[in-house]
Amino acid sequence: MTSQTSTPQHSKPAGPVSVIGLGPMGLALAETLLDRGHSLTVWNRTPTRADDLVARGARRAPTAADAVAASPVTVVCLKDYATLYDVLDPAAAVLADSFLVNLNSGTPDEARTAADWAAGHGAGYLDGAIMVPPPLVGEPGAVFLYSGARDAFDRHRDALATLGDPRYLGTDPGLAVLHNAALLTMMYATMNGWLHATALVGSAGVTATGFAELALGWFMPAVVDPASLLAQAPDLDRSHYPGDLGTMEMNLNALEHIAHTSAEQGVHTEQPLLMRDIARRAVAEGHGEQNYLALFEVFKKALPAV
Amino acid sequence: MTSQTSTPQHSKPAGPVSVIGLGPMGLALAETLLDRGHSLTVWNRTPTRADDLVARGARRAPTAADAVAASPVTVVCLKDYATLYDVLDPAAAVLADSFLVNLNSGTPDEARTAADWAAGHGAGYLDGAIMVPPPLVGEPGAVFLYSGARDAFDRHRDALATLGDPRYLGTDPGLAVLHNAALLTMMYATMNGWLHATALVGSAGVTATGFAELALGWFMPAVVDPASLLAQAPDLDRSHYPGDLGTMEMNLNALEHIAHTSAEQGVHTEQPLLMRDIARRAVAEGHGEQNYLALFEVFKKALPAV
Ligand SMILES: NC(=O)c1ccc[n+]([C@@H]2O[C@H](COP(=O)([O-])OP(=O)(O)OC[C@H]3O[C@@H](n4cnc5c(N)ncnc54)[C@H](OP(=O)(O)O)[C@@H]3O)[C@@H](O)[C@H]2O)c1
Ligand SMILES: NC(=O)c1ccc[n+]([C@@H]2O[C@H](COP(=O)([O-])OP(=O)(O)OC[C@H]3O[C@@H](n4cnc5c(N)ncnc54)[C@H](OP(=O)(O)O)[C@@H]3O)[C@@H](O)[C@H]2O)c1
Repeated sequence: MTSQTSTPQHSKPAGPVSVIGLGPMGLALAETLLDRGHSLTVWNRTPTRADDLVARGARRAPTAADAVAASPVTVVCLKDYATLYDVLDPAAAVLADSFLVNLNSGTPDEARTAADWAAGHGAGYLDGAIMVPPPLVGEPGAVFLYSGARDAFDRHRDALATLGDPRYLGTDPGLAVLHNAALLTMMYATMNGWLHATALVGSAGVTATGFAELALGWFMPAVVDPASLLAQAPDLDRSHYPGDLGTMEMNLNALEHIAHTSAEQGVHTEQPLLMRDIARRAVAEGHGEQNYLALFEVFKKALPAV
Repeated sequence: MTSQTSTPQHSKPAGPVSVIGLGPMGLALAETLLDRGHSLTVWNRTPTRADDLVARGARRAPTAADAVAASPVTVVCLKDYATLYDVLDPAAAVLADSFLVNLNSGTPDEARTAADWAAGHGAGYLDGAIMVPPPLVGEPGAVFLYSGARDAFDRHRDALATLGDPRYLGTDPGLAVLHNAALLTMMYATMNGWLHATALVGSAGVTATGFAELALGWFMPAVVDPASLLAQAPDLDRSHYPGDLGTMEMNLNALEHIAHTSAEQGVHTEQPLLMRDIARRAVAEGHGEQNYLALFEVFKKALPAV
């Protein structure tokens, strides 16, 4: 609503960035930064992986330390956290006052440990998770999750925005990989549900294409649409599970039918059996007359040791 | 586009229908039929459940046999298949030339057995599955799945359409409950994924409402939208799983991180561990370089006996 007097963001000169790690993902990050006009320094254990980038104007650093020293921001995209230490412990001398954006996959504890390690060397540290495959880096809709130092995130937002839509989740450095794990577990659970369902009808000769019309053309958008789940999220925050439109007992009954049906039809049974067992546990823990969302109370707890 | 010379369907006189079973669902079916002008006969083990219907013009049959004999179509909505036989075996004498639409839940084998039982008594039989809770019966968007005799389905389509959008799935009477099981397993898997994911971020203090914005406001519609799964269904039919955009091995790696993260954060681990194990099996069976959809090959098989 206010008039824009300053130069728009995207015409500001793009700052220097270093990239360490040129696997499929690191290469995509480096190419995107180069394409958008950032002055780029790269390092990779296998130096030849940088050949194309160098031909297009990137600088090949002789050591990881040299790459860190070359730019105010260093994006690290190695295999895992162990590799991060292998590569950057020898660069300890230049880490003070550097700023590391670490994008490998891992667990929240690994991310927190890496943030402590960086702090111990006087380096700024932001942990991130990349929510797209390499070809979609820098494309519209690419999302990167970040957590750690907020001021660093704000200061380097331009470079981060080159790679994708940057979403800051909080100061706990574990939050980016934690959200990544949570989103992916939703994705895998949904995919597994669809694939198991397709196998189930397939056992009676129904094609995946035929079933998809009903299952994905109608059922999922009509019955399990994200907007209706979104509207139920506040109930989870208050542990409010009214059973008046359907109880856990009724859902357990349906899950028993699904498990029997899977066995009868000769397809995989472990997945429906586990869903049945989780609903049974919810009933055993007193949620039988509440609605299906009361399963949340089961999922919040580690299993009792056997 | 052609001019309508015949009377529109909905102004045809609504035919007589009987309803056997007046639990929450049977009652919703009966009320809907009565509201839409069908002449209604009802029977229930506990006769008082019919009081309101009778006050509104329905006829209370003294026996189940009397209810079957009263109308060309009898909708049966009892607890399960065993109850169907309990209630209708004593009515065997009037079953010949009756037409039963049976809507209880069960397995495909139970539905096939019931169709054979009906045929043995000379009754027409259609098996169905109701995809909505009682308050939504007869409302726009209510879907009923049917399988069994096609001619009977066509002949009685008007009465069936009173209850909801009738979808005919094929002559195998097991198909309606099979599709019901398949759709519900998708629904439960998706719900379980969301609830486990929410528990996972909740362990770091993130609210369900906060997470839902990212998970359901962005991630699910953007990354796991039904339309993109629909587009992949033909690949399942041809067992075509190209790994160029991401392999099973990569997904297994992510699933290992999710399982570790769930354990680290002290939430439920069985669900991610099972997803990891299923992906491990896919790799063990030679699908490591194919994409995640190759899991379909695992789901199609019953587990090898231990
Ligand atoms: N690819 C994706 O779709 C995707 C998506 C999201 C997140 N991620 C994450 O991004 C990170 C990088 O993935 P990627 O796909 O690029 O491939 P990757 O195979 O996970 O990692 C390859 C990179 O790690 C380096 N590396 C491995 N071991 C090393 C060691 N001992 N010392 C020094 N360098 C070592 C490789 O160097 P060399 O070239 O010398 O082998 C290369 O730079 C991973 O954590 C991955 O989970 C990937
Ligand atoms: N409710 C839903 O949201 C829903 C959704 C889809 C499908 N369904 C299916 O629809 C069917 C009916 O469900 P419902 O919700 O109405 O309630 P229900 O509790 O499953 O069934 C109640 C009906 O069964 C009768 N019944 C039970 N045992 C009997 C026996 N031994 N002899 C004679 N009658 C007996 C009851 O009679 P009394 O009144 O005398 O006890 C009542 O008519 C079930 O198979 C259910 O799975 C329900």
